[in-house]
Amino acid sequence: MKISAVLKMLKEGKITEREAEKAVSENFYADIGCAKVDLDRLRRTGAEEVIFGEGKTPEQIIKIAKVLVEKFGAAMATRVPKGAFEAIKGAFPDALYSDAARIVTIDRRAPKARKPGRRAKKTFIAVVCAGTADLPVAQEAAETARFLGSSVRLFADCGVAGLHRLLDNLDQIRKAKVVVAVAGMEGALPSVLGGLLKAPVIAVPTSVGYGASFGGITALLSMLNSCANGVSVVNIDNGFGAGYNAHIINSI
Amino acid sequence: MKISAVLKMLKEGKITEREAEKAVSENFYADIGCAKVDLDRLRRTGAEEVIFGEGKTPEQIIKIAKVLVEKFGAAMATRVPKGAFEAIKGAFPDALYSDAARIVTIDRRAPKARKPGRRAKKTFIAVVCAGTADLPVAQEAAETARFLGSSVRLFADCGVAGLHRLLDNLDQIRKAKVVVAVAGMEGALPSVLGGLLKAPVIAVPTSVGYGASFGGITALLSMLNSCANGVSVVNIDNGFGAGYNAHIINSI
Amino acid sequence: MKISAVLKMLKEGKITEREAEKAVSENFYADIGCAKVDLDRLRRTGAEEVIFGEGKTPEQIIKIAKVLVEKFGAAMATRVPKGAFEAIKGAFPDALYSDAARIVTIDRRAPKARKPGRRAKKTFIAVVCAGTADLPVAQEAAETARFLGSSVRLFADCGVAGLHRLLDNLDQIRKAKVVVAVAGMEGALPSVLGGLLKAPVIAVPTSVGYGASFGGITALLSMLNSCANGVSVVNIDNGFGAGYNAHIINSI
Amino acid sequence: MKISAVLKMLKEGKITEREAEKAVSENFYADIGCAKVDLDRLRRTGAEEVIFGEGKTPEQIIKIAKVLVEKFGAAMATRVPKGAFEAIKGAFPDALYSDAARIVTIDRRAPKARKPGRRAKKTFIAVVCAGTADLPVAQEAAETARFLGSSVRLFADCGVAGLHRLLDNLDQIRKAKVVVAVAGMEGALPSVLGGLLKAPVIAVPTSVGYGASFGGITALLSMLNSCANGVSVVNIDNGFGAGYNAHIINSI
Amino acid sequence: MKISAVLKMLKEGKITEREAEKAVSENFYADIGCAKVDLDRLRRTGAEEVIFGEGKTPEQIIKIAKVLVEKFGAAMATRVPKGAFEAIKGAFPDALYSDAARIVTIDRRAPKARKPGRRAKKTFIAVVCAGTADLPVAQEAAETARFLGSSVRLFADCGVAGLHRLLDNLDQIRKAKVVVAVAGMEGALPSVLGGLLKAPVIAVPTSVGYGASFGGITALLSMLNSCANGVSVVNIDNGFGAGYNAHIINSI
Amino acid sequence: MKISAVLKMLKEGKITEREAEKAVSENFYADIGCAKVDLDRLRRTGAEEVIFGEGKTPEQIIKIAKVLVEKFGAAMATRVPKGAFEAIKGAFPDALYSDAARIVTIDRRAPKARKPGRRAKKTFIAVVCAGTADLPVAQEAAETARFLGSSVRLFADCGVAGLHRLLDNLDQIRKAKVVVAVAGMEGALPSVLGGLLKAPVIAVPTSVGYGASFGGITALLSMLNSCANGVSVVNIDNGFGAGYNAHIINSI
Amino acid sequence: MKISAVLKMLKEGKITEREAEKAVSENFYADIGCAKVDLDRLRRTGAEEVIFGEGKTPEQIIKIAKVLVEKFGAAMATRVPKGAFEAIKGAFPDALYSDAARIVTIDRRAPKARKPGRRAKKTFIAVVCAGTADLPVAQEAAETARFLGSSVRLFADCGVAGLHRLLDNLDQIRKAKVVVAVAGMEGALPSVLGGLLKAPVIAVPTSVGYGASFGGITALLSMLNSCANGVSVVNIDNGFGAGYNAHIINSI
Amino acid sequence: MKISAVLKMLKEGKITEREAEKAVSENFYADIGCAKVDLDRLRRTGAEEVIFGEGKTPEQIIKIAKVLVEKFGAAMATRVPKGAFEAIKGAFPDALYSDAARIVTIDRRAPKARKPGRRAKKTFIAVVCAGTADLPVAQEAAETARFLGSSVRLFADCGVAGLHRLLDNLDQIRKAKVVVAVAGMEGALPSVLGGLLKAPVIAVPTSVGYGASFGGITALLSMLNSCANGVSVVNIDNGFGAGYNAHIINSI
Repeated sequence: MKISAVLKMLKEGKITEREAEKAVSENFYADIGCAKVDLDRLRRTGAEEVIFGEGKTPEQIIKIAKVLVEKFGAAMATRVPKGAFEAIKGAFPDALYSDAARIVTIDRRAPKARKPGRRAKKTFIAVVCAGTADLPVAQEAAETARFLGSSVRLFADCGVAGLHRLLDNLDQIRKAKVVVAVAGMEGALPSVLGGLLKAPVIAVPTSVGYGASFGGITALLSMLNSCANGVSVVNIDNGFGAGYNAHIINSI
Repeated sequence: MKISAVLKMLKEGKITEREAEKAVSENFYADIGCAKVDLDRLRRTGAEEVIFGEGKTPEQIIKIAKVLVEKFGAAMATRVPKGAFEAIKGAFPDALYSDAARIVTIDRRAPKARKPGRRAKKTFIAVVCAGTADLPVAQEAAETARFLGSSVRLFADCGVAGLHRLLDNLDQIRKAKVVVAVAGMEGALPSVLGGLLKAPVIAVPTSVGYGASFGGITALLSMLNSCANGVSVVNIDNGFGAGYNAHIINSI
Repeated sequence: MKISAVLKMLKEGKITEREAEKAVSENFYADIGCAKVDLDRLRRTGAEEVIFGEGKTPEQIIKIAKVLVEKFGAAMATRVPKGAFEAIKGAFPDALYSDAARIVTIDRRAPKARKPGRRAKKTFIAVVCAGTADLPVAQEAAETARFLGSSVRLFADCGVAGLHRLLDNLDQIRKAKVVVAVAGMEGALPSVLGGLLKAPVIAVPTSVGYGASFGGITALLSMLNSCANGVSVVNIDNGFGAGYNAHIINSI
Repeated sequence: MKISAVLKMLKEGKITEREAEKAVSENFYADIGCAKVDLDRLRRTGAEEVIFGEGKTPEQIIKIAKVLVEKFGAAMATRVPKGAFEAIKGAFPDALYSDAARIVTIDRRAPKARKPGRRAKKTFIAVVCAGTADLPVAQEAAETARFLGSSVRLFADCGVAGLHRLLDNLDQIRKAKVVVAVAGMEGALPSVLGGLLKAPVIAVPTSVGYGASFGGITALLSMLNSCANGVSVVNIDNGFGAGYNAHIINSI
Repeated sequence: MKISAVLKMLKEGKITEREAEKAVSENFYADIGCAKVDLDRLRRTGAEEVIFGEGKTPEQIIKIAKVLVEKFGAAMATRVPKGAFEAIKGAFPDALYSDAARIVTIDRRAPKARKPGRRAKKTFIAVVCAGTADLPVAQEAAETARFLGSSVRLFADCGVAGLHRLLDNLDQIRKAKVVVAVAGMEGALPSVLGGLLKAPVIAVPTSVGYGASFGGITALLSMLNSCANGVSVVNIDNGFGAGYNAHIINSI
Repeated sequence: MKISAVLKMLKEGKITEREAEKAVSENFYADIGCAKVDLDRLRRTGAEEVIFGEGKTPEQIIKIAKVLVEKFGAAMATRVPKGAFEAIKGAFPDALYSDAARIVTIDRRAPKARKPGRRAKKTFIAVVCAGTADLPVAQEAAETARFLGSSVRLFADCGVAGLHRLLDNLDQIRKAKVVVAVAGMEGALPSVLGGLLKAPVIAVPTSVGYGASFGGITALLSMLNSCANGVSVVNIDNGFGAGYNAHIINSI
Repeated sequence: MKISAVLKMLKEGKITEREAEKAVSENFYADIGCAKVDLDRLRRTGAEEVIFGEGKTPEQIIKIAKVLVEKFGAAMATRVPKGAFEAIKGAFPDALYSDAARIVTIDRRAPKARKPGRRAKKTFIAVVCAGTADLPVAQEAAETARFLGSSVRLFADCGVAGLHRLLDNLDQIRKAKVVVAVAGMEGALPSVLGGLLKAPVIAVPTSVGYGASFGGITALLSMLNSCANGVSVVNIDNGFGAGYNAHIINSI
Repeated sequence: MKISAVLKMLKEGKITEREAEKAVSENFYADIGCAKVDLDRLRRTGAEEVIFGEGKTPEQIIKIAKVLVEKFGAAMATRVPKGAFEAIKGAFPDALYSDAARIVTIDRRAPKARKPGRRAKKTFIAVVCAGTADLPVAQEAAETARFLGSSVRLFADCGVAGLHRLLDNLDQIRKAKVVVAVAGMEGALPSVLGGLLKAPVIAVPTSVGYGASFGGITALLSMLNSCANGVSVVNIDNGFGAGYNAHIINSI
């Protein structure tokens, strides 16, 4: 029930004050016990709540997804193991799964509602990826931004150990409105890109590496200390966050 | 000498091949011994080189500034101690100093060249600052973005311990095209802002705090782990980086 | 045997001095080889020993529980894996298990002995939980405080990314005598609560998160550096400790 | 102006809507440029804002103190260097300074308003301090709690290396409603106290020590991992926080 | 062949210089490919080489044990998983296994050669253990010292949360020539012991704990910063090292 | 197609400019989707790309290996689990696997092309290994250097706890042109070697150890702080990197 | 007053029960406000309290020293800056200062009471020091042990970078009953010594070094992970602790 | 006295066995109390002992330098503050000081003895430096290698933020036999160089940076995790070590 309808019913004495209060709050979030699904987030931040799958049971994911699909016609869950997807598919037969990105999407929106206008625009996000092992994180970023409505181009294996592979693709990357740079190990890619580009660079450190890479800490620190300008950083392996950030900048 | 002029002189036999090579490279950087000042950065990245003052002697800063002022009519140096500014003022009597931000600026550009067009635009950057002790970093961000050509509004002392101080200013902050959130201690401000805004939030952890704040590490980690979306992070106390990032997004 | 009885028997020559010494010490702890079960703790600290299940074999848990049940009519063990509970149930068919909290309880006390007086009182503990994945720790806190005799109300999914979900429940939370705030990732919840409440806030960082959350270190540091007053902190995932602390404050 | 007065004037058309809005917000905080002094905190949390002196100039401390003294008749600032106190004394000739605790207080409240009722009560806070070098932090805790209205007793040099010094004072400590335990180096004191007391123990690690004490990290970690129950922890050297927490528990 | 015999044969021309060199070196170590077993260690350090089982295959352990048993009539291997012991038992049917300590021993020495003299002495090592979960490390220490020839008494579950359990056994512990103190979590036991004893205390931090115990780092740091004198520390979970140290001190 | 051939065809109008561009770039790297295999590395750095197996699927390894074998007649992949090798063997029946070093090699080069000249030279690399558990890393170093064309001698179990085992082999080690020193735990071996040798020492810390060895961090730090000269360090367990470095120095 | 005297006076009614209690406790510690000087420590642990000078004012040191000198005829204070010694000398004109060790001693005991018996014994402590910059810590260890009554021999500059300097002195070092090994940087010295000696080795890491020596952490970790047996460790720069430990072992 | 001379005198009965032993050992090191100057190092490692000035008094430096100058005709001390140099100049009027590198050299060798042969060779070391603030470390490396006898070329300000400055000098750098890469902040330079060069790259992290650069830790970790081959690393700010390593490789 919309807030105006609730208030009208209250005024007409059809519901009590307590019932009205509860009905109003249901416009803002749905309390389903294990979660209070944020229904107001789209209005406040420009994007619906996305389900962070890690640490949630398939049952919890399904319960939250049901609320979102009912409200918005679509839902996305990140960091979903393959096994959990099987359970989710039982509840949503039209759910899709990206093996690489470990993302589940359910999308029942009319094609028009999928923001075709924006897609039609010439602007796109470039996701530049240092090594083959960094690809899953890069794909999480790309899938996220696409689900939210942006166009994305992915450039794989452009690490600085073979600089010509990056320079060879530079003309294409330069055309992007915003760039996501994904790298593990020493995480030097965003610094090199930052020195070559006008677009803002969102750096994603990955946990790829061993020994003193400390599960991505080295790449994270490296990116935070970039000698190049225009680089900002998200958490280790946080492809989702980078894709989200890139999308809201691409949407400006 | 412009590259075309060099090539013309070479063709006409007025200079040797070696002289031509040197003259061409001087279009890209000026080698002054202690530094190779990047003259090509404006073309590549959209902004001139800014002098990072920390670890440089006043003499080095002056030498680099001279190259930049000659080429671009302006120069900015960050992290300059008051004492060093005195020496710089000897070389550039028109240099200005911001005590709070510890930034030196020299600006001899015609008012028009200071990007008046963009300033006239309605868009602005909101710099939101958690506590009084975080102000210097917030001011470094604000000064940087202004020097580069953006409009900036600064909101001081909006920390989450008194949430109403932030919520009271929310309507104003919501109008910004991009938001810089500056906080020390537990660094919770960007999370709260991220959950309330459509604009991208650039989070700057500061070294304000004591004990287990570890010189800003806690705030940095907190911001990297933000449960809100749309937040990206720069280095501890990196007001310059945040202002630069905010400007390039504001310039889109 | 009570100490007075032992002394009487010693005086009457029915037992030797050595036997008396041993019998007296048995009032204070029971030495069962792998453990010296603290029988005096209730007198000293106001609460019986609780079995920390991690790192103990089911056999050890059973041996200790037997001593406690015999002495106090009840026993509680935390951090017990489901598998170990099966073994414990073999020894205590009336043992109960909370899946979420991983707590085993055996309670043979007469209902009256379960401190009904205190339960009847109006005071209660509010356990406020940031995200769905933090629920197990919140439930450990709630179960612990209930076992010890306090009333508890649990508020799930009140993280700061959707501030309205917290503010909407604030009136209820304000009525609590003491508040437990459970959060992972950047752990901002206790700061926001601390700025809004009169009651003491016991903050519990959880290991929920990834990358630079470092298994809860970020949330821990964030809580230790809270800019709000009235917040104290327990170990990562230490729901038990928070519930215990909350109970002794609630018992004042 | 009280909110009711503002609304009355607005209704009577004596002030504009904008003026009313500003006047209402002034009941909640005073915007003095460098700070938004929280005037509503007493109502929300039960205690007025206390000025954290570190990182603030004497001028900023004076400006904030003026607002607080005008509103509440008293102000307290922590972590004020001796030198800064001289400047503050220029503005507040009746300001007092505790050398050990580095706290400035200005108190113009009528004796009655200093919560004599609570002081008269039998309850008190015990501040137990491990070593001589930990005394400044213990005194910060004691001064804070006293300023807020609690009675405090300080027990110096009760470290565990000479256990009898602690046990000898145990009868006195047991009478406290809440205990603050202050220790550096290995920080074992709260564990020993926690095992002996019914009262909640607020543990304060100090930066006293050298080498692998890492400026208090060891004591902090030790206290977070206490094997005794009833112990919660505040930041390193955070005597203020411990005193504040102890006071709100003592006020229950 | 003893060195003297080798030299004699060389002098008599029965072996070449090269053969002599090899034969001499075989008195000092046995090169078996994967290892150079140190046969000279007993002479140099007073104790034979002990096999550190972690990271070695059962085959490697057997090969090294064969050399040691042949030379000294006995061998000990620490950190041997149960599974590996089965394989070892195949090669040494008389090998014994301590489940708790995860130690394998083979001992074919004549009872007299097992240093009965020293065992007969009144001196012994006290191994004092904080909690039930610390027992395996304590038992590794005890088994090691016993294998090397010392008498050992083990005191279980004497953690500081129930101080009376420790004080009750103090008279016995005071009789030891050297004390090993084993504790996890906050590791306060050695500090309390150090303040009460004349004997040197060898502290062993264990990895028992969770969250901010960081796998034993907290206990380690705590012990290194002990405010009591007479405490020295070995690596986390290094029961072997503590037992070895205790034995060489007990052997003085 | 060689670059000259491409340019010729372009001049003759047989291919378009775009086709020429693509054909030229194929001389530098092969874009196979998941990777851009660096075909130019041999020319630039003197060695072909080696496949880092960790984090790559067997399919990805096979795809990259095919490109390398086709181009260079040989390929090597490090950190390949036994299971993955089975899959690789399906594609390359002549692939060889070193269990200890976890390296796969395919080598179809004519014996002459395997740099027999260099092997024939008197120079060799000494790989000195501290303990038995460090052997896999030492063997990764040795196998890598051999694949690249160097002669290698491996000295096992030369740790400093039994110094005579090292000194006994010193004459042999001194003959090497470059030395690789592999050690875990406290990593003291390179310091002792550095003080005794003229040759450069490349130190490889291993993750062998427990407790405060922190997975090799202690050995890494120890080696970085060596009081001996001539020691440089690679990442923890980076046998490959040490072998590569040793080879390029041996090739001088 | 001795306890027996107190009890006698109490029995005779010359003092009240309260006075008796206070008089008894004064046998155990002297409460001087800032400290409770431990007068019972000699009886319990075999050595008097030593004043840890760091973090204490000269006035506090003097007050504590007065109690100790009155009771025991001697006092020692460690980590006393030169400036503080001047103040102490004002109160104790016979106080002596060791510049290198930063130790103050006052010794008014009759020569006989200085444990001449033990000094006459053949046993001594060897303090072996790695580098010239480590000497102050080594001297703190030596001075401490000498004050407590042991004989000490100091071996300077025996670091492992020039192994022959150590081996050349080995015969002398082997005669010591216990060895203190002092080293900064990579701290390899105790490992080498541990492999060569029968005596227990107490390792002292020093903060000598730079960069990744992290103020002594590297040396500390290195010593904790020693591959040699018989090594235990004290805190960074804790010469006092090592000297104390060595003395109590030397006293066995 | 040479060893042969000593032995001759011993044989002739001119000196006692003890005198002979002392005289022989003086060929290997000079015991001057605070240090045992290593006189044998040139023979063993190919280079004389260099004085590490940090933590040594000017007097100690002078004493050691005297021994070295007497023996070898030259001495070098690193990390010498300007003030200390003044004192050293008093003892060695011909001592030279490099302000940037903070190195003192005394060189009385005949020009020929300064290894003119090697200098004449075509090989040289390239020291490539990322930023202006990194220059002191780069100069320490260059000065060290020059003192030891190598030719060096220094390339300043070649950081990756302006890649063309590096690529423009690549042809020169490629001619070096070994390359030293000096960088602070994110330390990406060695990775880029490693991917472009055949020569071994010795990477030196510097403490240049702020915030999460952690005094050079970030650069250090970045270099250890380089995705390029052929890179090995020395300690933070260890210009000396890099110069030394480069020299011994250049000497091959």
